[in-house]
Amino acid sequence: MNINDLHDPELAHRLQQKLDGKTKPQGSLGQLEALALRIGLVLGSETPRLREPQVLVCAGDHGLAAHGVSAYPSDVTWQMVENFLAGGAAVSVLARQHGLALTVVDCGVRHDFAPRPGLVVRKCGAGTADSLEGPAMSAAQCEQAIANGREIVAGLPGNAVLLGEMGIGNTSAAALLLARLAGLPLDECVGAGTGLDAAGMERKRALLAQVLQRHAGAKEPLQALAAFGGFEIATLVGAVLQAAAERRVIVVDGFISSAAVLVAKGLAPHVVQRCVFSHRSNESGHGLMLRHLGPDARTPARALLDLGLRLGEGSGAVLAWPLLQSACAILSEMASFESAGVSGRSA
Amino acid sequence: MNINDLHDPELAHRLQQKLDGKTKPQGSLGQLEALALRIGLVLGSETPRLREPQVLVCAGDHGLAAHGVSAYPSDVTWQMVENFLAGGAAVSVLARQHGLALTVVDCGVRHDFAPRPGLVVRKCGAGTADSLEGPAMSAAQCEQAIANGREIVAGLPGNAVLLGEMGIGNTSAAALLLARLAGLPLDECVGAGTGLDAAGMERKRALLAQVLQRHAGAKEPLQALAAFGGFEIATLVGAVLQAAAERRVIVVDGFISSAAVLVAKGLAPHVVQRCVFSHRSNESGHGLMLRHLGPDARTPARALLDLGLRLGEGSGAVLAWPLLQSACAILSEMASFESAGVSGRSA
Repeated sequence: MNINDLHDPELAHRLQQKLDGKTKPQGSLGQLEALALRIGLVLGSETPRLREPQVLVCAGDHGLAAHGVSAYPSDVTWQMVENFLAGGAAVSVLARQHGLALTVVDCGVRHDFAPRPGLVVRKCGAGTADSLEGPAMSAAQCEQAIANGREIVAGLPGNAVLLGEMGIGNTSAAALLLARLAGLPLDECVGAGTGLDAAGMERKRALLAQVLQRHAGAKEPLQALAAFGGFEIATLVGAVLQAAAERRVIVVDGFISSAAVLVAKGLAPHVVQRCVFSHRSNESGHGLMLRHLGPDARTPARALLDLGLRLGEGSGAVLAWPLLQSACAILSEMASFESAGVSGRSA
Repeated sequence: MNINDLHDPELAHRLQQKLDGKTKPQGSLGQLEALALRIGLVLGSETPRLREPQVLVCAGDHGLAAHGVSAYPSDVTWQMVENFLAGGAAVSVLARQHGLALTVVDCGVRHDFAPRPGLVVRKCGAGTADSLEGPAMSAAQCEQAIANGREIVAGLPGNAVLLGEMGIGNTSAAALLLARLAGLPLDECVGAGTGLDAAGMERKRALLAQVLQRHAGAKEPLQALAAFGGFEIATLVGAVLQAAAERRVIVVDGFISSAAVLVAKGLAPHVVQRCVFSHRSNESGHGLMLRHLGPDARTPARALLDLGLRLGEGSGAVLAWPLLQSACAILSEMASFESAGVSGRSA
């Protein structure tokens, strides 16, 4: 990755001047202006255009799910992949609404899918191993999943990717990654996932504490990723690395997609400068996650939406998509005070 | 207004059941589900469809602006109306992005506009009178402006209106309406508007305290509206009343549009049940305003976006529009657990 284009103070200055000259009080479009600046910097343009955006939903099963860390059975992973492809899931409906291409990747679902358009099969196993017993995946599987994510993104057209996931049990893996890589107390990282009750939460916390302890030595990003899983998260890590290297806008969904960014940031800190965080999830650890994904240690990442979403699939990323288009439209189409003959401040 | 359709517990139950049967954990689409329920109830359908949405931007000048309550001169009101019509303002750009029809109403701008498509002239005066000296408008003008708003909405097609405004000085009128009608300390209601500095804020607060005192007897909604203005707010009050009576979805923009809803609520409390609050503005009084616009005394109105916007024009309403379409798409297009063959909860 050429990191020099990430620090282009001249372009940043020109973008800010352009925004400040638009017919509105300076800064009055709030986060939309920060978003326009971000997209302009990623795409290297004062009039950035988002081309052929791609939704990438990575799916995989988790060995740990056998312990009942989710309110739903593991079969829901493959059933939902079928639902994505049939067009009936939330992400399918929302992607259709916005004209976004949708690719679903079987990164290691415990099911064999019939081939069809929109499905890419890059299995690294039939679900991960049980991380209570040993690492969720081998170092080789982890490497393979990351390579798969890189290769898939490299083959997609366009200059923006929206990242989502599916995998019963994957809030557990994401919570473990957050606790380990950000050095946070596990209890603060664990949430209700698809909707555990209080007793279920209690069991989940106790189990994850054992898993965390079991892999006390897995301190580096790739070690932690292999220890906790899953295949879909590792594939997303590769997708993030490749998209960042190719200077695509990366639209991050919720807790699990953000965990992939957290791992990728550990490998290449500048990837977060390519990311737009689409929403703050209702999953309790996501706020903490965003604090660790800011552009620097003192600045938390700001999410665009805060709608209490906790579905995953990329649904939040797709919901936020029109805001990215709006940010570009503001830069390209709004009149300036000068061009519109509007008076400036009097006070 | 037939208020019975506002309390349709059977339809509410069917909508909730429909949402709960969709292939997602119950409630996992957060506020989007509440939005779907709201739109379904307003349009009286389990599969609501938004038809021919209309952006209505009401503009007017304020006599009080001569005292320097805004960072911008009054001329900016008419210049921005020209900008709306020429397609260069934020609301014009965003409405175009989403294919929304835009109507601009001259409710009392101190300028004569050449007639053209998209402009409706319903002047109630050449700007309001100075509310420091007397009422901003007469009771007859106030009545006329409300009637204009009603008539304009009645003539628009479709089943949804997005309400915005323009008027240098109108955060002052909105702050005074909030302080009086919600019985709040004025200082908490006054914000920086288009961007006053600390000294400007000090002057604005001191001046508005005099205006509030000057009209101590104007306690009823219409009295307060006439006392503080403006023509664009009064026209919006009529628009809200008519849209609610016709069972249209009302998408409310920021501080000033919400002030119109506050007045309309004082006249017909159930109008708020037709409203979707598009965003929480950065104007400091808007959070307080939303607390007084909830469906009942204990429930504040929840806004969809919180992006630090403070532009007005309807820009926030238009930015939030795709979320309303998403909410409808969820109801109409998502598969159910049954139809997609997805397993339910195991825990």
